[in-house]
Amino acid sequence: MLITVNGKVVEESSHAVSALDRGLLLGDGVFDTVRIYSGKAFRLGLHIQRLADASRRTGIELPRDLESLLLTEIQRAAEQGLHDGFLRTTLTRGSGLGLGAQPHVPTVITVLDRLPVLPSAWYSDGIRVVTAEGRRNEMSQSSGLKTTAYLDSILAFRAAAQAHAEDAIFQDTHDHLSEGTASNLFLIADEAAWTPPVECGALPGITRAAVVEIATTLGVPVVSDRALLPILLESSSEIFLTSSVREIVPVVQCDGRAVADGKPGPITREIMNAYAEMTRCR
Amino acid sequence: MLITVNGKVVEESSHAVSALDRGLLLGDGVFDTVRIYSGKAFRLGLHIQRLADASRRTGIELPRDLESLLLTEIQRAAEQGLHDGFLRTTLTRGSGLGLGAQPHVPTVITVLDRLPVLPSAWYSDGIRVVTAEGRRNEMSQSSGLKTTAYLDSILAFRAAAQAHAEDAIFQDTHDHLSEGTASNLFLIADEAAWTPPVECGALPGITRAAVVEIATTLGVPVVSDRALLPILLESSSEIFLTSSVREIVPVVQCDGRAVADGKPGPITREIMNAYAEMTRCR
Repeated sequence: MLITVNGKVVEESSHAVSALDRGLLLGDGVFDTVRIYSGKAFRLGLHIQRLADASRRTGIELPRDLESLLLTEIQRAAEQGLHDGFLRTTLTRGSGLGLGAQPHVPTVITVLDRLPVLPSAWYSDGIRVVTAEGRRNEMSQSSGLKTTAYLDSILAFRAAAQAHAEDAIFQDTHDHLSEGTASNLFLIADEAAWTPPVECGALPGITRAAVVEIATTLGVPVVSDRALLPILLESSSEIFLTSSVREIVPVVQCDGRAVADGKPGPITREIMNAYAEMTRCR
Repeated sequence: MLITVNGKVVEESSHAVSALDRGLLLGDGVFDTVRIYSGKAFRLGLHIQRLADASRRTGIELPRDLESLLLTEIQRAAEQGLHDGFLRTTLTRGSGLGLGAQPHVPTVITVLDRLPVLPSAWYSDGIRVVTAEGRRNEMSQSSGLKTTAYLDSILAFRAAAQAHAEDAIFQDTHDHLSEGTASNLFLIADEAAWTPPVECGALPGITRAAVVEIATTLGVPVVSDRALLPILLESSSEIFLTSSVREIVPVVQCDGRAVADGKPGPITREIMNAYAEMTRCR
C-alpha cells in the first residue's frame, strides 16, 4: 500500500494526520476512487472532474497539481510492481474546529493499493442484496457528491451481512430506488436498462456513465431520468451494481426473492464483457 | 488546547492519527461535546450515556475507561488554569478501508479547550437565522446520533453567513422543522414551548432536555412529540436555539422577518437565567 499526505509519502503504520483534521472531526471532506489497470488509471480525467465539482460545491480547495500528484503515485506503484489496483484520493478542508472555519491548507490523502479480494463467485453466480433500513437523503445539499459520510452505508452493509447478503439497496426519503452502499444500481426490465437518477440520491457514477454508453451501443435503451419504484426490484429480469472498484456485479437475489431464474442474465453478461473490453483497450 | 489520542497527550501541531482512520476516510465515527464550568463537566453522565447509545447502534466500540479518561483530562486542564471551556470526545471505528471492516482498536480523540469567542450581542440582542437549503434526513439509520457527518451543517452555516445570518434552521425531508446546524430549536407559541421531535431528525440534545425541565418548572408546557410545520417560525412569539457549547441563544430574525418585535422575548430570558443558574449550581 502506498500512502501520501499532502504529497509526502507516509508509512501505513505511521501517524500522519492531525487529530484536528476536519475530515476526521466534522466529515468535512470528499473523495474519489479510480481503478488502475496495467499501470494506467481508467478515466482519470472524469474522476478529477468529479472532485473539482465537489470542490466547487463545498468550498474545499482542490490542489492545483492534483493530476500530477496522482500520476506520480501511479508511476511509483508501477515501479514497485503494483500495476492493478485502486487509487483513492481524499480531500478535506484542513484542520480546525468550528463550522465556519476555512483553514489555509487543505488535506490531501492518497491511498494506492491492490484490489480487495472480491470472490470470483460474485461475478460468475451473482450476489444477494437486501433493502437498506435507512434512506439516502436526496434533499441533502451534498447529495450527489462523494463525501466521506459513509456511516449509513457501513450500517446498511453490516445489516446486509447479518442477513446473509453481500450488499444493500437504498431508497431515497420519498420511496424511490437510489443506489447500493457504494455502487450504482441498474435494472433490466421491458428490454430496457433503468438506473435511478441523481435526483433520487444516486452518485453520478463514472462506471454508471460507462455502462450507459455500453448499453446504448448494444441497442439496449437506457432510462436514467425517471424516479423508480422499489416494486421494479421484483419485476426486473436482471439486476446489477456498478462501481469503479467492483466494476459490474450481477444481483441474483433481492430480499430473499430470486431475481428471475436466480442466475446472472444475458444482458448483464454482455455488459460485463463489454466493460472488460473497454477497460482493457483505452 | 489539550488533545489526546487513545489516551496519549499529543501536540496541536503534531500528526497523531493514521491516514487510514475510518473516521477520516469514511465518516465512521461519533462524537460528543460537554461544557466545563468551574472545572466540572455539566451532566457528563448524560453525555457518556449518549455516546454509549451511539456505540450500541453503530458497533463502534466505547472505551471502558472513557469516564476516567475524560475526568483525567478535565483535571489536567484545571491544573493548567483552564476551568471553563468544552471537552469534545470523538470515537471512530479505527483504521482500515472496506465498509464491513471492524478493526481491533477504535480511535478515541479528546479535545479540551476554552470556548470559541461567542459575541455577547448574540445573548443580549439575539441572532438571525435562515432556512437551510438542504434537509436533515430523519429516515437515516444514524438519525438522532451525533455522528461526525457535519458537511451539510457546514454548507448550511456557510450559506447563512453569506446571507448575513448567524445560523440556519433545517427542515426534515418531509417539510417539518428539525434543528439548527449544531443546536436544537425551540419556539414559543400559544403560551407553550415547542421543540421538534427526534423523529424529525433532531438530536436528542442534553441542553434541550435541560430546557424542557426548566420550562416545565416555570409553568410553560412543552410539546416535544409533534411534527412541527415551518409556518410556526412565522407565528411564534419567541424562538431560541440550544446547545451545550452555546447554551441558549435567542433568535430575533428568521429569513429576513423579525420574530415578534425583533427582540429576545421574556420566556427566553427566563429560561436563559434559569439555565445559567442550573449550570452554576450542580
